[in-house]
Amino acid sequence: MQIDFDKSGGLVPAIIQDEASGDVLMLGFMNEASYRETRRTGEVVFFSRSRNKLWKKGESSGHVLKVRDVRIDCDADALLVRVNPIGPGVCHEGYRSCFYRSLDEGGSSRPVLTSTFAPDEVYQKPIPPGKAE
Amino acid sequence: MQIDFDKSGGLVPAIIQDEASGDVLMLGFMNEASYRETRRTGEVVFFSRSRNKLWKKGESSGHVLKVRDVRIDCDADALLVRVNPIGPGVCHEGYRSCFYRSLDEGGSSRPVLTSTFAPDEVYQKPIPPGKAE
Repeated sequence: MQIDFDKSGGLVPAIIQDEASGDVLMLGFMNEASYRETRRTGEVVFFSRSRNKLWKKGESSGHVLKVRDVRIDCDADALLVRVNPIGPGVCHEGYRSCFYRSLDEGGSSRPVLTSTFAPDEVYQKPIPPGKAE
Repeated sequence: MQIDFDKSGGLVPAIIQDEASGDVLMLGFMNEASYRETRRTGEVVFFSRSRNKLWKKGESSGHVLKVRDVRIDCDADALLVRVNPIGPGVCHEGYRSCFYRSLDEGGSSRPVLTSTFAPDEVYQKPIPPGKAE
């Protein structure tokens, strides 16, 4: 069956779920090229709407998402990608899941997960003294 | 915190997850009005892109989604709505989850869930003989 990329201008939402725990880790978008690249490599590649290009999850952090199964919904316009996530978390703010905050009815949010890594250590690796490149 | 409805033309994707089982049941979109209505009623209301109006999940089937928790992602442009789903399934094709098919690398799909109800009985209730209204 065909994924309906046309419904939303070439993109489909892709829910990322940890296959082992069932936790929903994040949501990204895929275009046809990123979906093909995800399949070819066995690791999740999104299309970044803000940067307007393919974005391999984990390219800087090493926290790649190994694809275990891809599910498609009834009207073929959304994907559920079940993964084995490598590393302590997918969220650039240092959590296992990007959905780490609960939102109450009044609009206040509070973290419901505990931080699993220090983003500064993962996303910025300053050049050590003496190492010019 | 504010939900970023502006990023995608007034809509955010809302992942629906069964709080008890962890299963991802479906994905819909919410605009600000549907989010407010979801909060006011405690049951999920989407915005239907095809019908261009609010769409209360379960309005015809009775299979409403009772909201247990709403999570927001790190950049505030996606929601994870954890629910108690009423009834045997959310999918109009008769399954517990809309993501009932696995998609292989060649593009073939196969059901990985078993059907839990007969859509014809839920979505079409023909008037019994003798009952004119």
